[in-house]
Amino acid sequence: LRPADARAVARTLGWCYGHDVPIVPRGGGTGLAGGAAPLLGGVVVSLERLRRVLAIEPGLWRLSVEAGVRTADVARLARESGLMFAPDPGAAEQSQIGGNVATNAGGPHAFKYGRTGAFVSGLEVALAPGELAQLGGAGWREAAGYDLTGLLVGSEGTLGIVTAVELRLLPARAGALALVVFTDDLQSAQSALLAILSSDARPAVLEFVDARAFQAAAATFPGEPPRGAASAARHAGPVLLLELDGPEVQRDRERGELEEALGDAEGLSVESVPPAPLWRWRDGMNGVVAGVRGGKVSEDIRVPRERLAEALEAVYAIGAELSLQACAWGHAGDGIVHATFLVDPATGDELERGLRAGERALELALALGGSITGEHGVGWVKRRFLAAQLGPAATAAHERVKRALDPRGLLNPGKNQPAVEDGGERAGSAGTRVPPVAGGGPG
Amino acid sequence: LRPADARAVARTLGWCYGHDVPIVPRGGGTGLAGGAAPLLGGVVVSLERLRRVLAIEPGLWRLSVEAGVRTADVARLARESGLMFAPDPGAAEQSQIGGNVATNAGGPHAFKYGRTGAFVSGLEVALAPGELAQLGGAGWREAAGYDLTGLLVGSEGTLGIVTAVELRLLPARAGALALVVFTDDLQSAQSALLAILSSDARPAVLEFVDARAFQAAAATFPGEPPRGAASAARHAGPVLLLELDGPEVQRDRERGELEEALGDAEGLSVESVPPAPLWRWRDGMNGVVAGVRGGKVSEDIRVPRERLAEALEAVYAIGAELSLQACAWGHAGDGIVHATFLVDPATGDELERGLRAGERALELALALGGSITGEHGVGWVKRRFLAAQLGPAATAAHERVKRALDPRGLLNPGKNQPAVEDGGERAGSAGTRVPPVAGGGPG
Repeated sequence: LRPADARAVARTLGWCYGHDVPIVPRGGGTGLAGGAAPLLGGVVVSLERLRRVLAIEPGLWRLSVEAGVRTADVARLARESGLMFAPDPGAAEQSQIGGNVATNAGGPHAFKYGRTGAFVSGLEVALAPGELAQLGGAGWREAAGYDLTGLLVGSEGTLGIVTAVELRLLPARAGALALVVFTDDLQSAQSALLAILSSDARPAVLEFVDARAFQAAAATFPGEPPRGAASAARHAGPVLLLELDGPEVQRDRERGELEEALGDAEGLSVESVPPAPLWRWRDGMNGVVAGVRGGKVSEDIRVPRERLAEALEAVYAIGAELSLQACAWGHAGDGIVHATFLVDPATGDELERGLRAGERALELALALGGSITGEHGVGWVKRRFLAAQLGPAATAAHERVKRALDPRGLLNPGKNQPAVEDGGERAGSAGTRVPPVAGGGPG
Repeated sequence: LRPADARAVARTLGWCYGHDVPIVPRGGGTGLAGGAAPLLGGVVVSLERLRRVLAIEPGLWRLSVEAGVRTADVARLARESGLMFAPDPGAAEQSQIGGNVATNAGGPHAFKYGRTGAFVSGLEVALAPGELAQLGGAGWREAAGYDLTGLLVGSEGTLGIVTAVELRLLPARAGALALVVFTDDLQSAQSALLAILSSDARPAVLEFVDARAFQAAAATFPGEPPRGAASAARHAGPVLLLELDGPEVQRDRERGELEEALGDAEGLSVESVPPAPLWRWRDGMNGVVAGVRGGKVSEDIRVPRERLAEALEAVYAIGAELSLQACAWGHAGDGIVHATFLVDPATGDELERGLRAGERALELALALGGSITGEHGVGWVKRRFLAAQLGPAATAAHERVKRALDPRGLLNPGKNQPAVEDGGERAGSAGTRVPPVAGGGPG
């Protein structure tokens, strides 16, 4: 169904509740966790027709839009008012702001500025059994009572359907510069990361691309990698990509602080690179890596930032054990690792092994005290791991909250929910699992 | 009860659940909404013995402490590591971090940096019917599943009892300067506020003190108010108090941007003042104003920032109608107004009229599209107004979430809950209402 407005969304929810039919909200369809797919049947409600700009108040840094407005249009509306919408998830031309809220989408700049939820000051949502509720609003989210706005953020359409969003904007950034730090090995990359984190600089972006992923995309790298075979062998660790922003004096000061922080570290080479081509190159990483063998399995995990080197080492070990090429990149500043295993889907059991490697990466995240999802959400594909991450008490609370707002379990059923851990469930989910092979791909 | 550790808190909750006894968590007891008072009987659980520092990791900007650690000690621990804990609610020497989380405490610097909840990356909480749950942690709050951490923040002890907190720290600020803007009247203050908000400067603090409150504390004002009778008459509008922080170049740039933004406005006078004495003076406002007639009724409301002048005008009208002196001050940048009515509690029905004026201020906040609480929470004293603010659909969701995590309604009963609106309830609550007269007082 493609309802024309918020009231039609609420009516649809009411009908589904009255007829015991599952309802699956869908934004731009760019999610990577199967969140918007009607895997247990039911009605898919696309928000694409909810595209009105409800209010734009540049002086108060406020923008209210319906849920179906595309992320890129939100960014454009902000820019045209001399402001900035900070979240920058991938696929912004296709994704919708309602989906960004439902998944609490991040992006490279989330390191400094925060994810989508940090910019949501109010929501209009359709709640079971079929009503519209206004949450927060008028420029702030901390109103009175519980932070229901925050509860809806990241709930992946399982507690209600976001129909409109009030956003906090920020002043436009005065400028940006990008730096690339080449490192010798995992340990020197880990040390550099910690040195940057404990410096007084506040990078807007702090990414990493490991040596194997860098190699795959080296031909189009827009900067000057350290030259020659000796140098390539030397700088064989992950590459860190940073952006500093703000007025020039501030960027220069922060650059000085970064260089001072990195000055003591061995085996580093710091290069300045124009930001726009660097981030275009970085955005292309997913496709380039998928092209190496024709496909890949990527899992988006989060690890404590002080354990990044340990995580990468373990990802490589998983690949070696399953005879798959492994590589990784991600948002180093937030500990987000897109652990990737290259597969040729047409060859033998490579895809099967890749999926197994992906599951091992999720177990790794848990073993390191991390999270089974960095920024892509739990959706359908990771639900079997949710209970292990949350532990019994939080799992019970999670399920009680779900039942409270969706007593009949009709809102995006199965998604973002701890699955019962038994043999049947495991087997069943392997059959319906959406393999994250090629296409779309992680930010 | 004064449990010795988190497990004892969970056991206490378990006992209360097993015996149908209300349980009221209590931190430093500095709240202004009656949230920590056992108004319906039951067991008061003080967190004061949970004072351990669990981990401090300066390089990762992380600090984990038990719930009973005082706010001032959290700030000191951060400072001693070269870092900053940004929230700065009043009464930091007495309040505890667990209570700050439970009320999502703010403070002047919340304008730039955010309230307590923005710095909580993980929680340990005792949940009904008596278990400990770990939520978030390892440096981030966005883990997997619902943001239960955020749901507990600001829940005022009605969904669970916070026993430990993982906090995000920030680098220490490089310095600060304070500016005071004297205005002619309500309209020139409103214009100045909007000009500041739409400038590129990001003040750390943006407060206001209206002319009547300023007058009461003028003798100890640490700066140079515009002199002479003519000047006093001229600058009879609210005074705006600002702080700019960061490295000197940044402060200077922002000061320039502010002065440019204010340059066009009529009837302003901008003075520079040393920050420390200014904020001490501002902190004393509550006591000074209470001293004028020996008591006062203050209500902490929030209004859209573009309606601040309108709100102040209406507060004065309420005072005039009830023959009470009215004044106000608060966090202009966040639209938070401490609407204050002076009373001599020993004289006639002044206190009674003051309480009526306070209720009118809450109704005013709702009429302006604002909130019945700016930063003090709903607690017991504002619960009758909660349903009107939330509306029927959000009220129902609020109640369902409460029942989900506290099915027997034993966790801090009556607090932060929409009360049934009937005559009996009204009469009953008037009898037990805690009048916010003198003492403590709003930040």
